[in-house]
Amino acid sequence: MEFKVNSKELEKLLNRVFPAVPTRTPMPVLENFVFEINDNLLTVSASDLEISLKSSLGVVADGNLSILVPAKLLYDIVRTLHDTTINFEVADHKKLTMTTDKGEYILSYTDIGDYPEIPSFPEDGSFEDDPDYGQISLKSEDLKYALEKTSFAVSKEEMRPAMMGVLFEFTPDGLRFVATDGHRLVNLLLKSASVENQSRYIVPEKAINVLLKILNEGEFTMNLSKTHISFRLENIELITRLIAHKYPDYSSVIPMENEFKMKVKTSELQSSIKRMMLFSHSNTRRVKFSINSDSIEISAEDIDIGASGREKIFCEYSGEAMEIGFNSQYVNEMLAHSGSEEELIFSLQNPTKAVLVEPVENREDQELLMLLMPVRLNT
Amino acid sequence: MEFKVNSKELEKLLNRVFPAVPTRTPMPVLENFVFEINDNLLTVSASDLEISLKSSLGVVADGNLSILVPAKLLYDIVRTLHDTTINFEVADHKKLTMTTDKGEYILSYTDIGDYPEIPSFPEDGSFEDDPDYGQISLKSEDLKYALEKTSFAVSKEEMRPAMMGVLFEFTPDGLRFVATDGHRLVNLLLKSASVENQSRYIVPEKAINVLLKILNEGEFTMNLSKTHISFRLENIELITRLIAHKYPDYSSVIPMENEFKMKVKTSELQSSIKRMMLFSHSNTRRVKFSINSDSIEISAEDIDIGASGREKIFCEYSGEAMEIGFNSQYVNEMLAHSGSEEELIFSLQNPTKAVLVEPVENREDQELLMLLMPVRLNT
Repeated sequence: MEFKVNSKELEKLLNRVFPAVPTRTPMPVLENFVFEINDNLLTVSASDLEISLKSSLGVVADGNLSILVPAKLLYDIVRTLHDTTINFEVADHKKLTMTTDKGEYILSYTDIGDYPEIPSFPEDGSFEDDPDYGQISLKSEDLKYALEKTSFAVSKEEMRPAMMGVLFEFTPDGLRFVATDGHRLVNLLLKSASVENQSRYIVPEKAINVLLKILNEGEFTMNLSKTHISFRLENIELITRLIAHKYPDYSSVIPMENEFKMKVKTSELQSSIKRMMLFSHSNTRRVKFSINSDSIEISAEDIDIGASGREKIFCEYSGEAMEIGFNSQYVNEMLAHSGSEEELIFSLQNPTKAVLVEPVENREDQELLMLLMPVRLNT
Repeated sequence: MEFKVNSKELEKLLNRVFPAVPTRTPMPVLENFVFEINDNLLTVSASDLEISLKSSLGVVADGNLSILVPAKLLYDIVRTLHDTTINFEVADHKKLTMTTDKGEYILSYTDIGDYPEIPSFPEDGSFEDDPDYGQISLKSEDLKYALEKTSFAVSKEEMRPAMMGVLFEFTPDGLRFVATDGHRLVNLLLKSASVENQSRYIVPEKAINVLLKILNEGEFTMNLSKTHISFRLENIELITRLIAHKYPDYSSVIPMENEFKMKVKTSELQSSIKRMMLFSHSNTRRVKFSINSDSIEISAEDIDIGASGREKIFCEYSGEAMEIGFNSQYVNEMLAHSGSEEELIFSLQNPTKAVLVEPVENREDQELLMLLMPVRLNT
C-alpha cells in the first residue's frame, strides 16, 4: 500500500499533533502517531491519555490504512527534509519505507493493536437530544484571552485535583472561567458566550497550555460531554479528558463588604513589586503594603542576608491607613496577567481578609475579578 | 562615603563583568563584585579564580573605596531600575544604602578581606625586557573568527587537561589556533598576526566562551605572561589563567600522504548528515560514506529500533572507491563550524587513517585545516 504527500504539508500536520505525544510515559505505545487513511484523507492523531490531538490532510493513496508510526523519529525526519514529495510504502514485516528524490528512509511501524481509543464527537453535533451533551461556537481570540487571564492561578497541588484545572461554567450571564490555588483566584465572565445547558466542566492544565498554543484566529466549536470536551479548530481538534472532581464553591470566598477602595497604576505597582521581590525572604516571599490616602509604601526585608528595600508609589485610597502583607510572587503574577488593564482597584477590609482586585473599567463583554489572600506580617 | 552613578551606565558595567561571577562555588566570597573607587573612577571586577573580568566607569565620589558587594542581588536590583541617578552611601556596620527618586535599598557589604588577588598587567606594556612577557594588538573580529572556527573541538575530558583549551601558538608565519579532543582537530593559522616572542599558550574553554560574547568590533590588546593572558578591549578586560600543561604534538597526527581528494558542497553534505544522525545508533552515532567518483552514498542504521536511511549526494572524487565510517555528530559539528566555506576538500588514504578536511580556497590571511578520525565499520 502506498501514499504520497508533500513534505512541508506533512511537517505542518505533525507539528500540530506532536504536542500530545508524551515525552515520558509508562505506555510506550503512546510514543507513536496514529496514521489513518480513509479515501485519500490522512488523519494523524496522538494522545497522552489526558489530551488527544487530531489533524487531517488530503493525500494520494491507493488504499486505506491504520498503523502506528514512531512519532519523534518521523517528525524529526520530516522536519529536516526540503520541500519535496515523500512516497510512503507500507510493506509487510512492519517496514515503512519513505522515498524522496534524495534518499530512502526505513522505519518500523506497528499495528494499531492496543493503542487506547481516542474519544470522538460526531461532526454534526447530532446529540442534541442527550442532556449530557452540548455544543457551542466561540471566537478563538475570546477563549485565548480568557485562558491567558486565568490559567496562571491553577493549583499545582496534586492533593486538590479539582483545582488543577480551569473551571468552565455556563451560566445565564455567559461563560465563566475560574482558576484558584487557594491563595489567589481569578474569575472571568465572558458575556458573549452562552449555551442552554448550564453545566460546569474542569479542563486540566495541560489542555489549557496546548490550547493557548493552537488558538489563533477564527471560530472554533466546543463539544461538551460529561467526561470530555473537544475543541475543534480549523485544522486541528483537541480532545481532553475532564477532571472528574467537584470544583470548590468559589463564590463563598469572594468578600462582599470590602469597602476600602485603592486605585493604583498597574505598571507602577508591578515595577515596584519586581524590585521588592529581590528583597523578600526566599521562604515567605513577603512584601508589606503600607497604605495611606495618597501613597503606598511597599517594603520587603530579608534578615538572613541583611538586605531591605522600600519604595513609594501613588495611589488613591478611601479607607483607613492599613498595613497588609502579600506574597510578592502572587502579586507579581496577578499583575503580569492583568497587563492590559491600565489601572486596578484593590478592595480591602482589614489585613487578614481576602482582597479583591478589579480593573477600573471592564471591557464591554467581560467581568474580571481577582482575589488575593494576604499573609501575616508578624511571623 | 558617598558616590553617584547613573543606573543604566551601571547596569551596562555590571552586565559586562557578571559572567565571571561563579554560580556555584565552594568560595562564597567569589559571589561578590569587587567595587573599587579611585579618584572618581569606579572599577568593578569579578573572578571565578580561572577568569576575571574588570570594567570601569567615571562616577561622582567624595572619596576612595574598596569593598565587596553581593553580585547577583546588586545586578538584579540595578537591572530593574528605570533610568535614574543612584546615590550610594557606604556606612559603617557594613550597610550599603542605595537611594533613587523612587526608593531606598539596603545591602550588606563586606571588606575586601580574603578576596583572591586578580592578576594585573601594566597598562603601558612596560615589561618589554622580560622574555616571559609579550604584548600584541589584534582585530577583535579576527580573534572571534578564529575562536568560532576552533573552540567546538576542545576536549571535555578532565583526564587530558592540556586539551581542555585552545592552543595559541605564535610562529614566524602568524598566530596559530589549535583545538582537539583526540577524535577531531582544528588548526587555523591567522597570518595577519605576528609577535616576536615565539611561545605557546593554552587558553581554557571558559575564557574562550566569555571572549566570544564580549568580542565585537575594534582592536584589542593581548598581554601574555607565563601563567596568564589578559585581553584588553575598549571597555572591559578579561584576565585568564593559562592551562599549565604541555599541549600534545598535534603536527605529528596530521597525515601527509592522503592523496585521494573528494570535493563536496558543505551545505548538501550537512543537510544529509543531519538526517542520517537520526538513524545512527545512539551509542556509536556511526554513519557510513560509500564514496565513488561522482557521488557519496551516506547511510546509517539503528538495528535496535529497526530504522535505517540512505542518501546520495554529488561529489568529485579522484581516488579508489572507498567505504569509511564517521561519528555523525563530529561530522555535523565540523560542518556547522565551516559554514562560511562553500566547498570542502576531504583528503583520504584508507578507512582507518585520519581524514583531512580543508576549504577549497582559504581566505587570504588564513590557513584552515581540520582533521577527522574515522570509526570502524564492522563492529
